[in-house]
Amino acid sequence: MEDVTLGQIAARFGLVLRGDPAARVKGVAEIESAQAGSIAFLADPRHRRYLASTGATAVVLDAKTAADCPVNALIADNPRASYARIAAWLHPEPALVPGVHPSAVVGAGARIAASAEIAATAVIGAGAVIGERVLVGPGSVVGAGARIGADTRLAARVTLYRQVQLGARCLLHAGVVIGADGFGIAQDRDGWVKVPQLGGVLIGDDVEIGANTTIDRGAIGDTVIEDGVKLDNQIQIGHNVRIGAHTAIAGCAGISGSTTIGKRCMIGGQVGIAGHLEIADDVVVLGQSMVSRSIPKAGVYAAAVPASEAGAWRRVVGRLRQLDELFNRVRRLERPGDHKDAKTP
Amino acid sequence: MEDVTLGQIAARFGLVLRGDPAARVKGVAEIESAQAGSIAFLADPRHRRYLASTGATAVVLDAKTAADCPVNALIADNPRASYARIAAWLHPEPALVPGVHPSAVVGAGARIAASAEIAATAVIGAGAVIGERVLVGPGSVVGAGARIGADTRLAARVTLYRQVQLGARCLLHAGVVIGADGFGIAQDRDGWVKVPQLGGVLIGDDVEIGANTTIDRGAIGDTVIEDGVKLDNQIQIGHNVRIGAHTAIAGCAGISGSTTIGKRCMIGGQVGIAGHLEIADDVVVLGQSMVSRSIPKAGVYAAAVPASEAGAWRRVVGRLRQLDELFNRVRRLERPGDHKDAKTP
Amino acid sequence: MEDVTLGQIAARFGLVLRGDPAARVKGVAEIESAQAGSIAFLADPRHRRYLASTGATAVVLDAKTAADCPVNALIADNPRASYARIAAWLHPEPALVPGVHPSAVVGAGARIAASAEIAATAVIGAGAVIGERVLVGPGSVVGAGARIGADTRLAARVTLYRQVQLGARCLLHAGVVIGADGFGIAQDRDGWVKVPQLGGVLIGDDVEIGANTTIDRGAIGDTVIEDGVKLDNQIQIGHNVRIGAHTAIAGCAGISGSTTIGKRCMIGGQVGIAGHLEIADDVVVLGQSMVSRSIPKAGVYAAAVPASEAGAWRRVVGRLRQLDELFNRVRRLERPGDHKDAKTP
Repeated sequence: MEDVTLGQIAARFGLVLRGDPAARVKGVAEIESAQAGSIAFLADPRHRRYLASTGATAVVLDAKTAADCPVNALIADNPRASYARIAAWLHPEPALVPGVHPSAVVGAGARIAASAEIAATAVIGAGAVIGERVLVGPGSVVGAGARIGADTRLAARVTLYRQVQLGARCLLHAGVVIGADGFGIAQDRDGWVKVPQLGGVLIGDDVEIGANTTIDRGAIGDTVIEDGVKLDNQIQIGHNVRIGAHTAIAGCAGISGSTTIGKRCMIGGQVGIAGHLEIADDVVVLGQSMVSRSIPKAGVYAAAVPASEAGAWRRVVGRLRQLDELFNRVRRLERPGDHKDAKTP
Repeated sequence: MEDVTLGQIAARFGLVLRGDPAARVKGVAEIESAQAGSIAFLADPRHRRYLASTGATAVVLDAKTAADCPVNALIADNPRASYARIAAWLHPEPALVPGVHPSAVVGAGARIAASAEIAATAVIGAGAVIGERVLVGPGSVVGAGARIGADTRLAARVTLYRQVQLGARCLLHAGVVIGADGFGIAQDRDGWVKVPQLGGVLIGDDVEIGANTTIDRGAIGDTVIEDGVKLDNQIQIGHNVRIGAHTAIAGCAGISGSTTIGKRCMIGGQVGIAGHLEIADDVVVLGQSMVSRSIPKAGVYAAAVPASEAGAWRRVVGRLRQLDELFNRVRRLERPGDHKDAKTP
Repeated sequence: MEDVTLGQIAARFGLVLRGDPAARVKGVAEIESAQAGSIAFLADPRHRRYLASTGATAVVLDAKTAADCPVNALIADNPRASYARIAAWLHPEPALVPGVHPSAVVGAGARIAASAEIAATAVIGAGAVIGERVLVGPGSVVGAGARIGADTRLAARVTLYRQVQLGARCLLHAGVVIGADGFGIAQDRDGWVKVPQLGGVLIGDDVEIGANTTIDRGAIGDTVIEDGVKLDNQIQIGHNVRIGAHTAIAGCAGISGSTTIGKRCMIGGQVGIAGHLEIADDVVVLGQSMVSRSIPKAGVYAAAVPASEAGAWRRVVGRLRQLDELFNRVRRLERPGDHKDAKTP
């Protein structure tokens, strides 16, 4: 992208500019290391100390902080969100190379929009439907009958199993697997019988899915990821899960089969949620917690203990084992006249 | 598959039919949303409420529940297992396309059964042996000298390192990696020295391995997965682990090196098992637990705390830090005549 | 490798040989199952019981243990490290096949050393730079402008996004993804706005990265993995993390964005470290712990509770919920003259 003026940025993104509308920037930078020609943002109060000495040509910040800004200020209600939009404009994704690379393999009856890019060594299954301006990155495998909405990008080495459906403007990172069989097994005399996984996966619009995340197909009905959901890396989502719109889940979380998560939830890293639960809208679960019951009410939930020095922690663990006994000892102490011989009941 | 009669199903799967043997079904459905022409099952007592109004043509259920069934009943000792077998029969996997796709690459001396399918862009290493009716899905990499037993399927983008051996009728999902180096490093003055990982991986018959699961090769001896083991997605299995027959492990669990797990165990999601342990047969470990000692006896084991409201949980964590001190305070209270000045010892 | 004499080994690796310098070995073996012609090592005291009856031609061990060795002894300060070096010499990696496989795809302007191997179906992006004796294994994708140092190997199906830089002598296992977007999202009225991830990933020399591990690119600055870091399988490393030289991290750990980990740390399996923290040099975190505050001091830290029988554990969890109340009851008991009516305050 060519450089742009602050006046153009203010107009395009609806910001108030305090400074020189003709000043030019050509990229974003961190406030503490920014140089002339760059635009930074200030949202985290811990970074305020960098403001006085910033080398940025302009800073995106809120009205309260703007008075202290020694350079051009772009005043935003939500500096982080405005910064994100400006950055995407200044640093656009590489342009697609429309067409099917000669090393890609396309199955019978697949329909591929002329504006889509099917990159090197990608494999498109029979009857798949690939929308306008879609990127199927190198080494990706799109199963038979899968459908990909307009402007969705599969970065590289993504796998969509048969019949999986993706909405528009999604971004799937490398190693993502959508539509593998859910973990359905029935116990029998001699071991396990596989329960065929016959449902699908429906993914809405504007969904981002991080590297090596896996989303299983439904057993009979579908697994559903609603619009605007954001998933970090290495998340596992079981069969027939439904995730409500605009919920964000951090890395390494695992959601077991048939659980429904509401809208606008925030699930921390390494959280585990058991199967067949209902999690309400606007629930926040802090990192590494285990959720084993439904959560019917918005709020913040937690279960993990922060690490401490190992010797001290070992004593706590030892005490945990004696906790039941301690309750009994205290109950004996509470009995009038009784506590003196608590040790020889 | 064409539609079939209930009489055919009863005969083929050894079930008692209460109803019309000429009634026809052509697929499975969930009991609550089933329509005419479909067969549902009832195993979970929570679903019994759907029975009276089911639209299914037939329901697979146990003898006790059959009396309440308003439609054709197929009576089974184990409705879920019988359902699984019926579903697999009604909804067979797509047929293989025997042969090597022109875009696949086959190394010198590899032996591939004529009935096997080597899909687009798959890579077969030198000297690999691929059995009858095997599927090597698109983008999969089979290392030199690896062996795959009859009827085993690698869904897509599976990696087998050199010399890995898979039994018959296994199913490996996309992104699985079998035979990468175990995490063997030796501490030295200036950092770490890699310990070469020279063993193999032996996988038995009827093993299912979920998407993006990894199983490392042995350091000297082999990593062994016995017959009928079922592994969910994103599981990590270290070098020289042995997993006993018919053990099932849920998603995101991690088994450290040189640990042996018995037969018919059930390991919950996100469980971590330390290295060099022995876990007996028929052990159940509940989700997110850490196992740091051997478990010599069958039973159910747990270690995780279910999430609760974050403020309440924070108080619990604070109290944990004071637990040792509380034990001391109670001990002082228990000393006859002593407790009144407990606070000023 | 041809077989070698113990004299050659002693000379090459600086060990003291007690025994026959002309005795020949051709491979390594475990001390308990070793046969003639093999060399074993003894570092773990638990394995000392195998020494008297070992079938190995020679054993690498320390001076203290050497007196009990019934066969040729190679005396080392650090038997495990010396063993690792001997094993690597006796069992070298398969030789590269220099050149670009006809099924590989190379973008415009990529520079590939003549001694490098670009394996079947690999894809090299425009302008990438591939050093001497590099292996880009089958199905790997190297992004535009990425750089790979000499002697580094990408085993198979590795993805490097654009501009990622790898040092020399690294080993990346199958399914590794380096340089996917970090999890950067800004909350807005109607959901989330993606924060473009514009930084890179810099990986030093002698770094090993296990199967299906993911390392995200920086938001603006870079994610940095210093020299000699060893990462096990299925680890997730967020954007702008820095990991100090020679730190080792076990499987399934997750490091959140912008956290700095010091040098020579050892992080256990399934550990979760929150974002924006500083972990000092020489910190050890035991398996499955959650780290939610900075650790400014070397030492051993822990937070997980080992699994116990589920019924007993359920009682502990119940008691945890009552812990706050128990502290209050003990405080009442401690009040002089007050404790007798503790139950009716």
